[in-house]
Amino acid sequence: MAAIVLRDGQTVFDPEYVARPRHSGEVPVRVTTAGICETDLQLIRGYMGFEGVLGHEFVGIAESGRHAGQRVVGEINCSCGECEACHGGRGNHCPHRTVLGILDHDGAFADVVYVPEGNLHAVPKQISDDAAVFVEPLAAAFQIPAQVDLSWLRRATVLGDGRLGNLCAQVLRLQGCDVEVIGKHAEKLALIDELGIRSRLLSEITLGPTADLVVDCTGSESGLQTAMQLVRPRGTIVLKTTTAAPSGPNLAPLVIDEVTLVGSRCGPFPAAIEALAAGQIQVAPLISGRYPLAEGVEALDRASRRTHLKVLLDVN
Amino acid sequence: MAAIVLRDGQTVFDPEYVARPRHSGEVPVRVTTAGICETDLQLIRGYMGFEGVLGHEFVGIAESGRHAGQRVVGEINCSCGECEACHGGRGNHCPHRTVLGILDHDGAFADVVYVPEGNLHAVPKQISDDAAVFVEPLAAAFQIPAQVDLSWLRRATVLGDGRLGNLCAQVLRLQGCDVEVIGKHAEKLALIDELGIRSRLLSEITLGPTADLVVDCTGSESGLQTAMQLVRPRGTIVLKTTTAAPSGPNLAPLVIDEVTLVGSRCGPFPAAIEALAAGQIQVAPLISGRYPLAEGVEALDRASRRTHLKVLLDVN
Ligand SMILES: [Zn+2]
Ligand SMILES: [Zn+2]
Ligand SMILES: [Zn+2]
Ligand SMILES: [Zn+2]
Repeated sequence: MAAIVLRDGQTVFDPEYVARPRHSGEVPVRVTTAGICETDLQLIRGYMGFEGVLGHEFVGIAESGRHAGQRVVGEINCSCGECEACHGGRGNHCPHRTVLGILDHDGAFADVVYVPEGNLHAVPKQISDDAAVFVEPLAAAFQIPAQVDLSWLRRATVLGDGRLGNLCAQVLRLQGCDVEVIGKHAEKLALIDELGIRSRLLSEITLGPTADLVVDCTGSESGLQTAMQLVRPRGTIVLKTTTAAPSGPNLAPLVIDEVTLVGSRCGPFPAAIEALAAGQIQVAPLISGRYPLAEGVEALDRASRRTHLKVLLDVN
Repeated sequence: MAAIVLRDGQTVFDPEYVARPRHSGEVPVRVTTAGICETDLQLIRGYMGFEGVLGHEFVGIAESGRHAGQRVVGEINCSCGECEACHGGRGNHCPHRTVLGILDHDGAFADVVYVPEGNLHAVPKQISDDAAVFVEPLAAAFQIPAQVDLSWLRRATVLGDGRLGNLCAQVLRLQGCDVEVIGKHAEKLALIDELGIRSRLLSEITLGPTADLVVDCTGSESGLQTAMQLVRPRGTIVLKTTTAAPSGPNLAPLVIDEVTLVGSRCGPFPAAIEALAAGQIQVAPLISGRYPLAEGVEALDRASRRTHLKVLLDVN
């Protein structure tokens, strides 16, 4: 048993760590591959005050339960199933929830992660382990069409050329939008271009209010301000960015222009699995590094450098 | 001819002012009664840098055109009719627009206001002149159901007990919502109570995330922050407040809770006229003062005091 553990503000590889279920009804999953996410890096910097095993993007083999012996991915929100939010179909917002590797629940940078059985989804054989690691962030991108009626929001701009921006751009194109990505990194924008999606460097453009839809995947305090300059009146901004900044921009322009701002977080796993199985989303180009679990601390350090997209951990 | 004119930061009564059309196709309307709005008070404090005749809530008699001799109210956005926004049905957001009494167009605190003929709506005889002055702000309240699907947002909280908060609460109740108004002024909340709508004093409640819908009509910088504490995950905040504050709150809670924020401004006149004609909205209790046009400067000063709701100007 082994895990990458965040404890007392330090991230360590613990070769003796023994995973235990957090709630009854959890199934042990033997982790095959895991992915490092921007949120992991924020947790290390103190976000959420999390302590425990990091990691919430993973694929593994269920060791018991309905999916025993199968490859599975797991939704990360562990809800109580009994409160008003849960009964209203909003389990991801259950006030009693724990979240794998993020909130009061050990995560997947470990030999074994315990996951509520209802959170598990079988992985079809068309999807490689490497691609399956992207189900969780890709589901977050599929949350956009789940929240917003795109049928009259055709001109879409994605702000940010990182992992999430790339995935959101692909999902929006799949939904029939005319997509453009605006970013700050020429080498990441080159990957967007290779997908056949238009891209532009932020430093080289004049901002104007022409987009029907703007998705802020910048992870930066200035992202929303830029989005407000790009969206047309009565358009929609999807906000994927959370920051620790003490304040945000004045929102008077949103009122005057009657813009809708949609906060967006986790999304539907089935849509992500289906799209990956159908080969509709390209994720292999996003993998920019891989490390064994024992080198996870170094992998996290590498992933924090701006040139990296997705760093994987080979666990078992 | 006479008007209340804002010029060089001063508001004056000009007994010699001669109104002239701003665009071709405008119809002279002999103003009967006009209403003072919070926006007028902001314009006087320098908002928008406006100069000219104030006033955008009014009823009058059209002096020519299709409605000649009839009582009319007028939409305030004067759009170009030719740009992409206008062709897309978003004339209220035409980038070339002028706005009566707000942006580059003389307003209605005058004997005569010129209005594009297409902006005029006849006033049915069931609606008094006093009530007709409320068509414009009531239309702004009816913009909420025009923008937001209320069928699954039943528990509504209106923040703010002023003119707009009162009208929004009445419109939401008319749409079948279970409405509560939270405000800071016991005497204004008493008017809400008299309508049979629940009300609570902000200072006497504990904020909790239970509302499906929160409408910020506070006109205050702290309104959005309070709204974010009242809305449930996946709920909706309608933002009616614009402030001149340099910044707003950090919006990370909106992302985590997947809240939708809808900027909302002007609304549909026909819905407002229909509701007033049917007696579905009570506006008389909101009238807290009336002055002749010649005393308009004093009326504006009175209207700026917090105890006032709606101050009317009797023009002709
Ligand atoms: Zn993540
Ligand atoms: Zn629950
Ligand atoms: Zn107004
Ligand atoms: Zn136009």
